[in-house]
Amino acid sequence: MFTVIGERINTTLKKVKAAVTERDADYIAEDVKRQEACGATYIDVNAGARIGHEEEDMKWLLSVIQGATKLPLCLDSPDPAILEMAYGLVEQTPLINSISLEKDRFDPMMQYLKGKECRIIALCMDDSGMPKSVDDIFDRAKTLVAELEGIGFKRDDIFIDPLIQPMSVAAENGNMAMDAVERIMTELEGVHTTGGLSNISYGLPQRKMVNRIFLAMMMARGYDSAIMDPLDKEIMAVLKTADMLKGADNFCMNYLKAVRAGDIVA
Amino acid sequence: MFTVIGERINTTLKKVKAAVTERDADYIAEDVKRQEACGATYIDVNAGARIGHEEEDMKWLLSVIQGATKLPLCLDSPDPAILEMAYGLVEQTPLINSISLEKDRFDPMMQYLKGKECRIIALCMDDSGMPKSVDDIFDRAKTLVAELEGIGFKRDDIFIDPLIQPMSVAAENGNMAMDAVERIMTELEGVHTTGGLSNISYGLPQRKMVNRIFLAMMMARGYDSAIMDPLDKEIMAVLKTADMLKGADNFCMNYLKAVRAGDIVA
Repeated sequence: MFTVIGERINTTLKKVKAAVTERDADYIAEDVKRQEACGATYIDVNAGARIGHEEEDMKWLLSVIQGATKLPLCLDSPDPAILEMAYGLVEQTPLINSISLEKDRFDPMMQYLKGKECRIIALCMDDSGMPKSVDDIFDRAKTLVAELEGIGFKRDDIFIDPLIQPMSVAAENGNMAMDAVERIMTELEGVHTTGGLSNISYGLPQRKMVNRIFLAMMMARGYDSAIMDPLDKEIMAVLKTADMLKGADNFCMNYLKAVRAGDIVA
Repeated sequence: MFTVIGERINTTLKKVKAAVTERDADYIAEDVKRQEACGATYIDVNAGARIGHEEEDMKWLLSVIQGATKLPLCLDSPDPAILEMAYGLVEQTPLINSISLEKDRFDPMMQYLKGKECRIIALCMDDSGMPKSVDDIFDRAKTLVAELEGIGFKRDDIFIDPLIQPMSVAAENGNMAMDAVERIMTELEGVHTTGGLSNISYGLPQRKMVNRIFLAMMMARGYDSAIMDPLDKEIMAVLKTADMLKGADNFCMNYLKAVRAGDIVA
């Protein structure tokens, strides 16, 4: 089954920032319940937008969210101290977003992750910046997996983000991401691949169409998770249809259930 | 670029049958012009439904269609005598639909094809019926390619149809088709893959959604042609988006043109 990391509880979004500022617990709880009802596997929590308030905001969010759902959380912060605090408060094994090969982030995150029971999103980014080829992405993924295995992570706990770059910049960016996903899923068998899809459509019109079709194509190459909005009915319809086509839906039961619920309309 | 074989001129369709019966040239010419405007690469011509009239109907259709378009035709008949007659009348190098490994069809078709200047759709069917595995599909494709190369066909002239089977029958049918396409496109480099997509959704509700998403997923694995309806705006929008994501659309020009024409709406 595909892992949906629900991206909506993020204080860089205006409405969420306002709700957090006003401590509007109902707004947050309601949104989380809707994400769960629509098929989220994890709820991402990012409290980074109100400078100087991340610790208290994260604490408050965790308490509100865990009052609204039993879903596991994806803890999203660049600051290991915030992650440490949040880790102490979660009730389910969390997914941590994220580690990369950038020296500034890699060393403290490895320090932080040692001995933790969690899963981790690993970005194929290093100090030279975005990857320039499939080999680039794969080499970084391999290094990240080796390092994380070295401190005790299992492959099933590792979600590699190949870092998707816009089609509007280079016609090969779609193939680069697709080929990289297939190579990672084949040669590093057992890991997952994830990430934000919507970068692919940056600068293009009708972006949601591009994101939807790219999701289906990435899934055909092995992509098995995304950071996305579970309330976007159309991309969720694509996800369920593609999951069924990949053979992950015996007797098409989930597909048929979604059609009956009115969630898949051709 | 993706090869779209426009499927609409087929006398098994009620309106087409009526138009052919009444020799309504305007109806046929209009439909062909619309297929061309919507992006058809070939116009498929099937005159098989009025028993005993195939020869005269095919002749009439070829004359009407070639009066309406300069597009090449896909000649669609099980009868080599009809194909022979039609071949004599076409103005562009045609695509012939089809050869298979069924003894009854293979021998006369090989006889017929020897020395012809044409392209050919080759079905992965033999006398034991539909393929049961990826190996089955691939072995049949390999045999067909070897035989056709043996009588002088170039790989670029061969369109392999892996024969798509419904998801409602087995959850692995989507993967079987996708894996087979990737293997054919990789190990028999230079050939094309094609076929009717819509078998995948037989027996399911909201079939058009399944067909659309399956097209995107198959394209991600190398599928580069389909027998389809170019007047289906939504599947054509998916096709153009997927073509762009595969890097076949420099500077996204075709995508942007389609958006401006109102053909891609998210």
